[in-house]
Amino acid sequence: MPLSAHRQFDLALAFAAESVERTMERLLPSGDEGEARLFEAMRYSSLGGGKRLRAFFVLASATLFKVALTPALRTASAVEFVHAYSLIHDDLPAMDDDDLRRGKPSCHKQFDEATAILAGDALQALAFEVLAHDDTHGDPAVRAALVAELARAAGAHGMVGGQMLDLLAESQDSEEDSGERSIGAITRLQRLKTGALISFSCTAGAILGKASDHARVALNAYAHDLGLAFQITDDLLDVEGNAAELGKTPGKDVAAGKATFVSILGLERARAQAVLLARQASTHLDSFGEAADLLKQAADFVVARRT
Amino acid sequence: MPLSAHRQFDLALAFAAESVERTMERLLPSGDEGEARLFEAMRYSSLGGGKRLRAFFVLASATLFKVALTPALRTASAVEFVHAYSLIHDDLPAMDDDDLRRGKPSCHKQFDEATAILAGDALQALAFEVLAHDDTHGDPAVRAALVAELARAAGAHGMVGGQMLDLLAESQDSEEDSGERSIGAITRLQRLKTGALISFSCTAGAILGKASDHARVALNAYAHDLGLAFQITDDLLDVEGNAAELGKTPGKDVAAGKATFVSILGLERARAQAVLLARQASTHLDSFGEAADLLKQAADFVVARRT
Repeated sequence: MPLSAHRQFDLALAFAAESVERTMERLLPSGDEGEARLFEAMRYSSLGGGKRLRAFFVLASATLFKVALTPALRTASAVEFVHAYSLIHDDLPAMDDDDLRRGKPSCHKQFDEATAILAGDALQALAFEVLAHDDTHGDPAVRAALVAELARAAGAHGMVGGQMLDLLAESQDSEEDSGERSIGAITRLQRLKTGALISFSCTAGAILGKASDHARVALNAYAHDLGLAFQITDDLLDVEGNAAELGKTPGKDVAAGKATFVSILGLERARAQAVLLARQASTHLDSFGEAADLLKQAADFVVARRT
Repeated sequence: MPLSAHRQFDLALAFAAESVERTMERLLPSGDEGEARLFEAMRYSSLGGGKRLRAFFVLASATLFKVALTPALRTASAVEFVHAYSLIHDDLPAMDDDDLRRGKPSCHKQFDEATAILAGDALQALAFEVLAHDDTHGDPAVRAALVAELARAAGAHGMVGGQMLDLLAESQDSEEDSGERSIGAITRLQRLKTGALISFSCTAGAILGKASDHARVALNAYAHDLGLAFQITDDLLDVEGNAAELGKTPGKDVAAGKATFVSILGLERARAQAVLLARQASTHLDSFGEAADLLKQAADFVVARRT
């Protein structure tokens, strides 16, 4: 009897989470030197939590192009290191000021602000160190391409730029009617803040597998729609979720009077839009045939998840 | 009439500063998008200041191996971006809490803490994006090696690790007699905090020029001694310098009761040690002959400087 699609995806996600965790564990610094507190903070915030969706996307896209597991897992680890660093810095008092992350005290609460800033900085450096290392791919052109693409996705024209927009939007929203902010502006913000890293994850397999431009374009289109569906669902969960399930404080966006997809579209239309985008994401992968089934299931999961 | 060594070095340093500034200016993001505040903060803190000693070291070591100017300037820019990001984060209230940098308000004073954290994060990403880009070197193996080496120098086993040690040392020093702390411990701290990036700068030319292991070992030894001489001189300037010349607040180490080379060795012995290390640094380059004259002059400059 064949596995149900749901069950197949669950197993693949669990496999990605378990495998990337083991790889990250080996790549992270440890030891009892004087600066061990830094190592501890890096491990505390990057290990033992998260859905590891980004790692899953790297592994699933790598499978499309028959990439070996080690290169895929090292690349997935690099993405998860960048994601972890961004969460540490986002949680800082000067930023979103969040005390809770994945059901645990956030990094600056568990350690202190200075250690949290440094742990984030070192995790970012580690991501690029891992990608550039010989073990990540035998072809240095592939390693350099991975670094260039991840750096771009993580930097001023990607994730960090999006976080800047988000901070500025919060201060604006408290002054003016948030209904004034357009869907276009929020879409651009999210495309940068969360979309860029998700896009890198979904196309990393194509870089590792030296796939055709056509394949990369298709994966990019998939990632674009899926990233947006992911973010709309995040906004929905912020309204409908609870802290115990989420492992973070819900209702923060509403409390901050922040414009979100939900505040502009309303619950029903936002939910419908997320489902539509997830379906649209999958159609971009039709040319890959059955090989892309797992990525298509991921699109369904992204909008159906409860955390 | 030949230029005096002093004059020759001054011109080379000015050339490096001017050239790297122009390259950085082109590589930094600009525009009037919503996130332009981020771009402004990145430019504010990385352009228009600093001795650009690290850029000089990249250019001077590149000259040893007849590397073209563009690869050297892009690599020098990457190092200066990392240096600039580290200063932004070091100045934050949770870290050294410094309001003044290069005679101007520090980044979080000019903008705000959140923007300063993000500007630092984006500058780090930019450094790796620049190194991995095709324009930095025709051989992707060289680009990957530059990324791997800079990431290691900047991360937990380098600059960030050293900054963690420094923060921990400060809290320890206020509790116990700072005389207890050994020269060995301070040397290790500084080798990580400032030495790692200086070592990368001095050996970057060898990576770009695909030089022999022998050449890299010699440059590493030079960088090791020079980095320490540089730091001891910094400690001396913290005691003897004035704010107008330094462009930052002097006397902070003493006020913080922080153990430095000067607090342990005393002024005279610290000065003698710096001069000795600078001389020793130069001898490591004897095998390069006259080609290394500029790097030898740099060693003299490092201990003679007043800022």
